[in-house]
Amino acid sequence: MERTLIGELGQKVGAEVCIKGWVSVRRDQGKMVFFDFRDRSGSVQGVVLPASAAIETAKEIRNEYVVSVEGKVNARPEKNRNAKVQNGDIELEVTKIDILAEAEPLPFDMSLDGYNLDLATELDHRALTLRHPRLQAIFKVQATIIDSFREFMKSQDFFEFQAPAITPATAEGGAEVFQVQYYDKKAYLTQSPQLYKQIVMTAFERVFSVNKVFRAEPSSTTRHLSEIVSLDAEMAFIDSWRDVRDMSERTVRFILERIAERHSKELELLGATLPTMIAKTPTMSLTEAQEKIFAKTGRDVRGDKDLNPEDERTLCEIIKEETDSDFVYVYGYPTRQKPFYVYPNPQNPTFNEGMDLLCRGVEWLSGGRRVNNYKQLLEHVAEWKMDPKKIEMFLEAFRYGAPPEGGFAFGAERMTMQILGLKNVREAAMFPRDMNRIDGLLAETKKPE
Amino acid sequence: MERTLIGELGQKVGAEVCIKGWVSVRRDQGKMVFFDFRDRSGSVQGVVLPASAAIETAKEIRNEYVVSVEGKVNARPEKNRNAKVQNGDIELEVTKIDILAEAEPLPFDMSLDGYNLDLATELDHRALTLRHPRLQAIFKVQATIIDSFREFMKSQDFFEFQAPAITPATAEGGAEVFQVQYYDKKAYLTQSPQLYKQIVMTAFERVFSVNKVFRAEPSSTTRHLSEIVSLDAEMAFIDSWRDVRDMSERTVRFILERIAERHSKELELLGATLPTMIAKTPTMSLTEAQEKIFAKTGRDVRGDKDLNPEDERTLCEIIKEETDSDFVYVYGYPTRQKPFYVYPNPQNPTFNEGMDLLCRGVEWLSGGRRVNNYKQLLEHVAEWKMDPKKIEMFLEAFRYGAPPEGGFAFGAERMTMQILGLKNVREAAMFPRDMNRIDGLLAETKKPE
Repeated sequence: MERTLIGELGQKVGAEVCIKGWVSVRRDQGKMVFFDFRDRSGSVQGVVLPASAAIETAKEIRNEYVVSVEGKVNARPEKNRNAKVQNGDIELEVTKIDILAEAEPLPFDMSLDGYNLDLATELDHRALTLRHPRLQAIFKVQATIIDSFREFMKSQDFFEFQAPAITPATAEGGAEVFQVQYYDKKAYLTQSPQLYKQIVMTAFERVFSVNKVFRAEPSSTTRHLSEIVSLDAEMAFIDSWRDVRDMSERTVRFILERIAERHSKELELLGATLPTMIAKTPTMSLTEAQEKIFAKTGRDVRGDKDLNPEDERTLCEIIKEETDSDFVYVYGYPTRQKPFYVYPNPQNPTFNEGMDLLCRGVEWLSGGRRVNNYKQLLEHVAEWKMDPKKIEMFLEAFRYGAPPEGGFAFGAERMTMQILGLKNVREAAMFPRDMNRIDGLLAETKKPE
Repeated sequence: MERTLIGELGQKVGAEVCIKGWVSVRRDQGKMVFFDFRDRSGSVQGVVLPASAAIETAKEIRNEYVVSVEGKVNARPEKNRNAKVQNGDIELEVTKIDILAEAEPLPFDMSLDGYNLDLATELDHRALTLRHPRLQAIFKVQATIIDSFREFMKSQDFFEFQAPAITPATAEGGAEVFQVQYYDKKAYLTQSPQLYKQIVMTAFERVFSVNKVFRAEPSSTTRHLSEIVSLDAEMAFIDSWRDVRDMSERTVRFILERIAERHSKELELLGATLPTMIAKTPTMSLTEAQEKIFAKTGRDVRGDKDLNPEDERTLCEIIKEETDSDFVYVYGYPTRQKPFYVYPNPQNPTFNEGMDLLCRGVEWLSGGRRVNNYKQLLEHVAEWKMDPKKIEMFLEAFRYGAPPEGGFAFGAERMTMQILGLKNVREAAMFPRDMNRIDGLLAETKKPE
């Protein structure tokens, strides 16, 4: 008999069907056995009556067994219906069960409500805990973040390219880079596709990429990962950094809309509410933001080179109170505090046209206008004391005519964490890599020879 | 004035417009100056008449200057029309030019017909050569291969996940793996998301990923890259390996259809023709394929452990002659020649249920059914002399109930190369990494300390 997905059983009342999936729960009531079966489309309750040919097999089966089940879809009596759960108005009367794969007894409770692991144990058993609805909800939302980023970019005529992971030299960062033994030479894992997306922009105008970036940050905070999915965009022929701001705002708005459309169930399960993005997100310079914080709290951060974490929280609170917006753009950072490619404000070159999008007290996205004039770029390279040979390919793109341009980037894991209100970014990475863990703990790993 | 894309000028005859883009060609005819302008949407000819206010600026401008141009869209006289090129029936009469960025004199001819670089020079100047229509065509087709893979997978209810790049141990390969200095420990760059996609399959049933994989193959052939975009799929609840075969065939067919729909212009420019996929791709066991080759050529390869490159070419020729299909599936390889996770044929365990899809003489895609029974998996791990501790996370997924399953994978660059008939796979990677090159040549790189 052809397989029916569990999610489609509601339309099959009265029919004989075959479902295939896992046993989430078995309740042996002596004469009868009840099951919760699940597949990728959902869950359904099954019952094996005493007279069923499947009753002996039903007694053998344990949680997480993989089964092929035949039976009849019955409407439940009115009093047994549960409108709050999927298929709460039907029940599968089981006539036949084939065991497709057995499962050993579970090392912990995997039920919806009983599941309660600390993060370390959860990660130690990622291969199993991924089956839990709460974890599935996290990664379903993350898949939508990534996919709707691509969808929006394509709708705006951005071209997708593949940024490289292995790079020859570290243009930007210092110590926080992973070294690769590359044949008999050395190379590095990319920290950002920044220079590559600017190169490709000079050929395709509007480009985006979804690629891994790597940060060797020797810290075990709740916010750091060694391997991150970076969502990057770059666009040519802008009139000012505000075009980049607008495109990034539309991107985030589109992602939030897609999540709202598709994931009400997942948000509810995780107890998460989407942040509020009003029609026009408040946007202010760093200086203005610092004035606001001073006026509100008396804490004088005016003239600081950047917002510190406390400033970011305070600013978001002020903006929320004033406008109901959970988001706020801050632009205009001290030029020399930021990378060489960020465009200085022509009216006041001490400050640049870089920007950050903050939400709920933390940075979600960064971007801004870039220097596109080749001579100015060479001046910056000299001022920033960089070796132009190490970025020769990047400089070549600008030597031969590069339009006014800018772009933005954000990390999929951090956005997932922030949208869902997760406490640790590791919860938002399916296989998180950090200082101490690559799947398992690294304690026993040998040192490199 | 708001910007009009060059591709939309055909609908603006008689109108005053502003375009922004690059100068592909400038032809100074003394009194008048002709230009070919281009942007991401295409090209158009512009003319600056002697009386134009732009004539002085027009004289300054060189190839690859970035310009903002105002003018009037004129229909060309009948005799000057060229139906073969985009906008061949119109011309932009230029009234104003603003130079947005200058360009230094080009180091080589970048014109459509004059461009003629050896591959090494082309790669040395990738930041510039990416602007050439021929290279753009390659990467546009590649973007469609990747995007239509995702599109088809989603249409079939496959869930996208992010496979990790950094791995703790090498489950499969031997020497051909890159080592990473991971804080004070050692780690490796992934060679394949194989084990991860099988893990995630046990939670989501149908999964796919688009991720980088890395191969430290110390060879400089035309077929090897150190960094590859791997397109991977895995599906649960199959009845046999033929379900995997069918899904992979539908995937490739969908990709070819999308390319045909979108890229006739690119295929023509590259002189490429899509391979023929008939209604049901010929499918045979390795043994049958060897018999065919022997019968046709007298070359006795019966009993060989695999098809060698000559066998693959011969088989594809035979199948093409017999059926007009450019594609052929070969399944049933010697079990012990392949990885531990490949499912042995229950009727004849000497041969497995792995498969390859060949086209035009080379392998395009690999896959097959996997071992899903936990006890059988443990037996394989022992027989293959693997350390079960190194794949503990993988084994855990199968310890707790894993359905019958299989999957397939292919590399974006190789498929691009084969579809477009490129001579070297480096042409199909925007920033190819190989033994000798990461953007620039590696000769001067210092040895790792």
